[in-house]
Amino acid sequence: MSKINLKKINTDSPKGLDKDATKAKTKILVDEICALQDTFIAAQKTSLLVILQGMDASGKDGVTKNVFSKLSPIGLQVHSFKKPTDKEMAHDFLWRVHQVVPAKGEITIFNRSHYEDVLIQRVHKWIDMKTVNQRFDAINHFETLLEQTGTKILKFYMHVSPEVQLERLEERKINPEKMWKHKDQDWEERKLWKEYMKAYEDVFQHCDKAAAWHIIPADQNWYKEYLVAEKVRDTLKQMKLTYPPLETNQ
Amino acid sequence: MSKINLKKINTDSPKGLDKDATKAKTKILVDEICALQDTFIAAQKTSLLVILQGMDASGKDGVTKNVFSKLSPIGLQVHSFKKPTDKEMAHDFLWRVHQVVPAKGEITIFNRSHYEDVLIQRVHKWIDMKTVNQRFDAINHFETLLEQTGTKILKFYMHVSPEVQLERLEERKINPEKMWKHKDQDWEERKLWKEYMKAYEDVFQHCDKAAAWHIIPADQNWYKEYLVAEKVRDTLKQMKLTYPPLETNQ
Repeated sequence: MSKINLKKINTDSPKGLDKDATKAKTKILVDEICALQDTFIAAQKTSLLVILQGMDASGKDGVTKNVFSKLSPIGLQVHSFKKPTDKEMAHDFLWRVHQVVPAKGEITIFNRSHYEDVLIQRVHKWIDMKTVNQRFDAINHFETLLEQTGTKILKFYMHVSPEVQLERLEERKINPEKMWKHKDQDWEERKLWKEYMKAYEDVFQHCDKAAAWHIIPADQNWYKEYLVAEKVRDTLKQMKLTYPPLETNQ
Repeated sequence: MSKINLKKINTDSPKGLDKDATKAKTKILVDEICALQDTFIAAQKTSLLVILQGMDASGKDGVTKNVFSKLSPIGLQVHSFKKPTDKEMAHDFLWRVHQVVPAKGEITIFNRSHYEDVLIQRVHKWIDMKTVNQRFDAINHFETLLEQTGTKILKFYMHVSPEVQLERLEERKINPEKMWKHKDQDWEERKLWKEYMKAYEDVFQHCDKAAAWHIIPADQNWYKEYLVAEKVRDTLKQMKLTYPPLETNQ
């Protein structure tokens, strides 16, 4: 896509949209996704890779839980990419990622992904711009390989405002059920908001060839989950998969 | 490289070259490689990937044994790529390959490789030319990623003549120490010699960008091993690696 300005893109749900009605719609979408997954597993023809990116507290975990938790775990995997291990660092940045891409009939969710290698690493200047650009190319080629060999890739950016992020980070300090999510580091990263937005804008501009980015307004969880569920449902539906016929020698 | 005609390239050692003198030289080269590997392991800066391709009985196993068996197994791995498993087939063709590329400080030998996916698969028409060309691109991008992130790739084609292959396949039928290597399938593949040569010529033309191919006359094992050893020694030497200095807080 052409260069975008994230500041100009809404983080909010449309005015007047009914929360309860939208949640009810999401519930129906999730049921549809479950039914479509049955055929998807049986057909063994295609894979689905869902990439979730966004600032801390933008709701990646929530989407994973609320959109995908009713699916059969037989064909579902979630990978959260943390700080690379020594062994991972001794390989190229796509090494650990390529290992866990979905097989045919599988849905895999990346909670953070190879995009961190052109986001956090860039923002902190651990890599130079020459490396950033090489990685953009490598990502495009990698995603092209996956798309050409039967993996549909859905990339979502959870677009949260700095104000709502602040509320959520504050809540982690006082809500006992959320304290485990508090990390001092998140407050440090927050100071680099502008740099992160610039890095994200470059990602959307340069890494949109093999698979498009979907920018999801993420200030309201119920709206964000609705949008993601709708896109996943549509994507599985468009695959037009059917149950394989009986194979028998009898 | 520009298109080559394998028929016009010698499979023989140069006339008059002394076998024993060459073997003695190879022995010295192997010792040099061992010494260079010590620094290579200590430095942990680069990786070396050696890809061995060639027709059946072209001597890939022999090279692996005679050039690399004195190296420390701490930093050495050999991967022989056989017929893909069901799980491997359910992923893109580079999935199983990417998993086993060398980490920094490691030397990895591929006995056959991702090139089989544009050789045997093409010759038997299991894939169409559109897929072959997509795979050429994917291989180039994959090897570029490795080269950019510190892996030197050495690609050797063991260039054996059909006459010498025939002798070696015949020997497998009568020499009790070689019978375990006999496979009926090799005699079937031999019938497709011309098609294989054409497929190899295309590989050399299209997949030479990230790392060059070295075509090794392979009718005499002693000459072939000398050439490979020399190239490996030169490559490690050119890395100009040194032992890291003492790190201590005392």
